[in-house]
Amino acid sequence: MAKELKELTSRAKDYSQWYQDLVIKADLAENSAVRGCMVIKPYGFAIWEKMQRQLDDMFKETGHVNAYFPLFIPKSYLSREADHVEGFAKECAVVTHYRLKNDPEGNGLIVDPEAKLEEELVVRPTSETIIWSTYKNWIQSYRDLPILVNQWANVVRWEMRTRLFLRTTEFLWQEGHTAHATREEAIAETEQMINVYAEFAEKYMAMPVVTGFKSESERFAGAEETYTIEALMQDGKALQSGTSHFLGQNFAKAFDVQFTDQNGKLEYVWATSWGVSTRLMGALIMSHSDDNGLVLPPKLAPYQVVIVPIYRNEEQLQKVNEKVKGITERLKALGISVKYDNADNKKPGWKFSEYELKGVPVRLAIGARDLENNTVEVARRDTLTKETLPMDGIENHIKQLLDEIQENIYKKAVDFRESQTREVNSYDEFKEEIEKGGFLLCHWDGTPETEALIKEETKATIRCIPLEGDKTPGKCMVTGKPSAQRVLFARAY
Amino acid sequence: MAKELKELTSRAKDYSQWYQDLVIKADLAENSAVRGCMVIKPYGFAIWEKMQRQLDDMFKETGHVNAYFPLFIPKSYLSREADHVEGFAKECAVVTHYRLKNDPEGNGLIVDPEAKLEEELVVRPTSETIIWSTYKNWIQSYRDLPILVNQWANVVRWEMRTRLFLRTTEFLWQEGHTAHATREEAIAETEQMINVYAEFAEKYMAMPVVTGFKSESERFAGAEETYTIEALMQDGKALQSGTSHFLGQNFAKAFDVQFTDQNGKLEYVWATSWGVSTRLMGALIMSHSDDNGLVLPPKLAPYQVVIVPIYRNEEQLQKVNEKVKGITERLKALGISVKYDNADNKKPGWKFSEYELKGVPVRLAIGARDLENNTVEVARRDTLTKETLPMDGIENHIKQLLDEIQENIYKKAVDFRESQTREVNSYDEFKEEIEKGGFLLCHWDGTPETEALIKEETKATIRCIPLEGDKTPGKCMVTGKPSAQRVLFARAY
Repeated sequence: MAKELKELTSRAKDYSQWYQDLVIKADLAENSAVRGCMVIKPYGFAIWEKMQRQLDDMFKETGHVNAYFPLFIPKSYLSREADHVEGFAKECAVVTHYRLKNDPEGNGLIVDPEAKLEEELVVRPTSETIIWSTYKNWIQSYRDLPILVNQWANVVRWEMRTRLFLRTTEFLWQEGHTAHATREEAIAETEQMINVYAEFAEKYMAMPVVTGFKSESERFAGAEETYTIEALMQDGKALQSGTSHFLGQNFAKAFDVQFTDQNGKLEYVWATSWGVSTRLMGALIMSHSDDNGLVLPPKLAPYQVVIVPIYRNEEQLQKVNEKVKGITERLKALGISVKYDNADNKKPGWKFSEYELKGVPVRLAIGARDLENNTVEVARRDTLTKETLPMDGIENHIKQLLDEIQENIYKKAVDFRESQTREVNSYDEFKEEIEKGGFLLCHWDGTPETEALIKEETKATIRCIPLEGDKTPGKCMVTGKPSAQRVLFARAY
Repeated sequence: MAKELKELTSRAKDYSQWYQDLVIKADLAENSAVRGCMVIKPYGFAIWEKMQRQLDDMFKETGHVNAYFPLFIPKSYLSREADHVEGFAKECAVVTHYRLKNDPEGNGLIVDPEAKLEEELVVRPTSETIIWSTYKNWIQSYRDLPILVNQWANVVRWEMRTRLFLRTTEFLWQEGHTAHATREEAIAETEQMINVYAEFAEKYMAMPVVTGFKSESERFAGAEETYTIEALMQDGKALQSGTSHFLGQNFAKAFDVQFTDQNGKLEYVWATSWGVSTRLMGALIMSHSDDNGLVLPPKLAPYQVVIVPIYRNEEQLQKVNEKVKGITERLKALGISVKYDNADNKKPGWKFSEYELKGVPVRLAIGARDLENNTVEVARRDTLTKETLPMDGIENHIKQLLDEIQENIYKKAVDFRESQTREVNSYDEFKEEIEKGGFLLCHWDGTPETEALIKEETKATIRCIPLEGDKTPGKCMVTGKPSAQRVLFARAY
């Protein structure tokens, strides 16, 4: 692979092309032969695995357990909850037959018309219906509650326009589905999980998020309330990064799931569901990366440190190898993941740009002079700076440096978001400002009509009604009617 | 849940019903509303997660990385490899449409005839075809090889008769797909992975296996050689527990995947694939469990120790709680997972049988007298024995005990298998012996015809041609023709 092949379109020139180039060239994912479905390549998958592991730990710490429910959902189940079917029926993959056969007329493999299913099956776009049909058998009494279950799974939504990670027909996600005895407990769970997502986004992805409610028209199909975390990408567009839904008793009623409470009274069960998906990969990429490639937060980097030897002959390489062995052991003892790339068929310069492209947080280079002086060159991916440091105690320096990088990219993202967030008070101003991108905090009268008008005229949507921040009432920028608080507008992915 | 509900059918009375009861009553899995698809419940999934984690570590230690490929396979891809399509076309779920709509005639939700796919998609029964169509773009030169990729995924094979874990329409598995520059390297990989499976089965599942080749008629559809590990269940039937396939250049040729070798010559790539599935859960259950419930090897138990308090009043419970806190901390410090069940709405006797049913390897009970004497009652699930021991240093005793239990259940399974394995020299004897179950080592002339005759007449199949053991040639028990070595026969799941 020649170096020029690696060059990315710059963000300034074409942000969307930059993203596409980066996903492909950093070996994260690619389009497959199946329309809208992606192949997640090993390097991309290694990042996703880090995310999964961390999220899974956080779910378990908050008392959840994993389980697995069927991929297929009987068609009739989807219809049980009226809003839910409205939201998902139009974009689902439908299994109608269970066998192929050789065409007796010689046209190769055809669907066997005799193997038609009595009831069609839908490939799950989300699992509320199949799960609540199962919970019906698990729940009789308040003693069976709460149920705190999560599943890691693939889901399919037949999207017309797809983009790697951001919107794909099949994607990977986790979906939590909990059942509770009271409304209060279910709401507390919904809030707990959006907070887990916010913590994960900020502490691990180094991505600041705004937490809030969705407006009614942006709610999950079947939810009474949807909480969301919204992040701002470098092109000024918002990206919804995780949602947690308070489902009320909607699914319990649809599937007749009742329990006997402590007073012996029969009640419908209260529900929540919450999920994040491989879309987070897109969010991660677009939050931090630059025209040289990926910038990964150390906490999610498949390897945090790469070491590149600089040598002129085999003898020098042997000496560097020896030295690196010691450093690697000391770094690993501190829990730092390290890759040593002493492949002989690539030049150091090629390796430098390769690991820049792949976003490895810290690069060490060791050459003959370093061996003489007992030094090492330390390069940071986030700032693209480098310095030569004494070898002794370098592992502790790097441990600290990784924390510093994690903090620095978070701070950079926070600063960027702050610079792109502003209050706007008139609709004229809004129309002008929205063209510049970013988060706009505005008064809105709370009606779906005004919301729809704004979307129609400006392509901006209400990202959320923030939970924190200024709660001063005001007047809707469009209609002048009363507004309870400013809400967050943006154009979004 | 009353105690009597928990009682299992005994193995002697009805082995198959015992298995079904156990899977349901130990909360491992249940049938879903979708024919042939199971719900894996949290306790069952926790065991599967332990298996996954260990296998994943072993794959990574042997140089593999994870990736993810699409759920759907274009119909035409299946046909590319002649044997492969023969093996899978007859049992696959076919997606023909991508949208539902409301019937204008008021019959509810129907498949939208306008949303018919140009080419039908098959839900993957296995991923060789979609993966090799992808590898075509990844491989140009010998420098791109080997590719050592694994994926954890769900697959669907439309089975007519299903049984929880053992044979389900949808199941979870991992599938490794590797690409190599030489035949020798691919064969070495195939062998390495069957050895990884054998090691996992024996060291972690405590389940002895026979490693060998499949006969031609039992090979994976598209393979040149299939290696298998075969385990013997307590009812004397064999269970194929993992397979590793040397695929030759079949898929490279089907998808035109060629590479330039070190001499500049264009060659087809050599392939392997290998997999184990949630079927291993069935193997685990049937290897060790008894009429009281599950028996889990400590290395795969979701919790290795359960502690039950015995008390007459709140004051006593408080004291036991205090004591347990210390023990739990000391056990955890040794890496032992512990559950303390001090729920007040269940009696100790109920808890004892519950954890017996769930196969927890060690149970501790602590009562008032134990507090006085500074002792604890230690019960082993594998032997159903118990003894009262001094509290001091109990954590070290338990650590050792867990190792002992792991070894003991392995040894028990080995002894059982040895008692059920015998050499048989005539077909008459074979017909008699096969009725008793177990592994029969017999001479076979190597022809599919003789193999088919034996299967037809006795329902026994060749489980494998063992890699180890007696290699003395002989004469086929059916035809008297020459036989290279004894092969392993059994009736199988």
